[in-house]
Amino acid sequence: MRLAELSARSGVPTATIKFYLREGLLPSGERISATQADYGGEHLHRLRLVRALIQVGRMPVATAREVLAAVDDTELDQHSRLGIAAWSLPGPAQGPNPGEEDDAATQTARQEIDGLLEHLGWEEFGPGTPAYETLLHAVATLIRLGYPCEAPHLRRLAQIAAQVAEADLDLLEGLPSEVEQVEASVALTVLYEPVLLSLRRLAQAEESARRFGG
Amino acid sequence: MRLAELSARSGVPTATIKFYLREGLLPSGERISATQADYGGEHLHRLRLVRALIQVGRMPVATAREVLAAVDDTELDQHSRLGIAAWSLPGPAQGPNPGEEDDAATQTARQEIDGLLEHLGWEEFGPGTPAYETLLHAVATLIRLGYPCEAPHLRRLAQIAAQVAEADLDLLEGLPSEVEQVEASVALTVLYEPVLLSLRRLAQAEESARRFGG
Repeated sequence: MRLAELSARSGVPTATIKFYLREGLLPSGERISATQADYGGEHLHRLRLVRALIQVGRMPVATAREVLAAVDDTELDQHSRLGIAAWSLPGPAQGPNPGEEDDAATQTARQEIDGLLEHLGWEEFGPGTPAYETLLHAVATLIRLGYPCEAPHLRRLAQIAAQVAEADLDLLEGLPSEVEQVEASVALTVLYEPVLLSLRRLAQAEESARRFGG
Repeated sequence: MRLAELSARSGVPTATIKFYLREGLLPSGERISATQADYGGEHLHRLRLVRALIQVGRMPVATAREVLAAVDDTELDQHSRLGIAAWSLPGPAQGPNPGEEDDAATQTARQEIDGLLEHLGWEEFGPGTPAYETLLHAVATLIRLGYPCEAPHLRRLAQIAAQVAEADLDLLEGLPSEVEQVEASVALTVLYEPVLLSLRRLAQAEESARRFGG
């Protein structure tokens, strides 16, 4: 197919596709004249992955390029591919304010989180990963504002989060190919975030009615 | 205490406190001279609530004024106060793009969500609430992009969300006063969102290691 058809079938504007080609995120098509190239199904798939990483996952272009290199590396197993994509995904919230990166609240939060992860035996994503750093600064904010955030409550939430992760991976394993799984792992992680948060708010209203309702 | 001390003890800048006073979000202090007023512990508490609504919950000033009126209404029970605060809280994600407010994907999503809420017997927050509308547009986005989002999966996530809500309300019930509970209900709903999302990402990495790891 030509560039115009690739754009129509993927829903990605031709200018954006040209940008991805220039940045090496999408392999060149097969050249059929001085000004035209032919694209195949593999371009359509890769385009969906690039869009998942950059538009849905807000991943910087340079990071997306590294993730794509890992996806294409036939020496890696599927766990490593999924891990590299997930590791590189920017955190779900903003980082700390200036001056709060390593204050007393952050140090207390770090101890609490390291204890939590050790208790759970979770050792895949440590300090430096966006997920760990987001957790660190969210817990530090709770401590700084004086809201409850004790270890037993965090453990309870972590065990609930493990159930979400099981549901997430079940959904992923239902997909037919490994490339689709990597693409979907990034897209589904991000796209299901507002689903989870709004279901929590609906459930809170029900639980509040049950406890405080007339 | 004077304005300067109220600012120091609350951590809210004096200019912001003056803005809250002008907007009627904070009651006036007791006037002790032509230019000075005296503030008490109730001002400190109310300031924390106003900050929870506006800064943490990103609630518009006019909406915050309505929530505060509900908190002060002695005719209302605690469930109604919590409900008005939670109902008014802006959704955890952006709304739909122009042209997507009522497209085919949104209509399918609406049917799916209404079926889900009926199945669960959840009837506190319906269409028009920020939580419902956020869920609607998140599910519509999944459908539009062709990602899996079937009813059994949503039901499974809703049941997990109900466990989070139980943990949330347990935390809230541990607080000593009703005003503190209303304040904390808004603040904790928002502040625990990045905690949940990052715990989910950490749990996904563990679950992926268990299923795909070597």
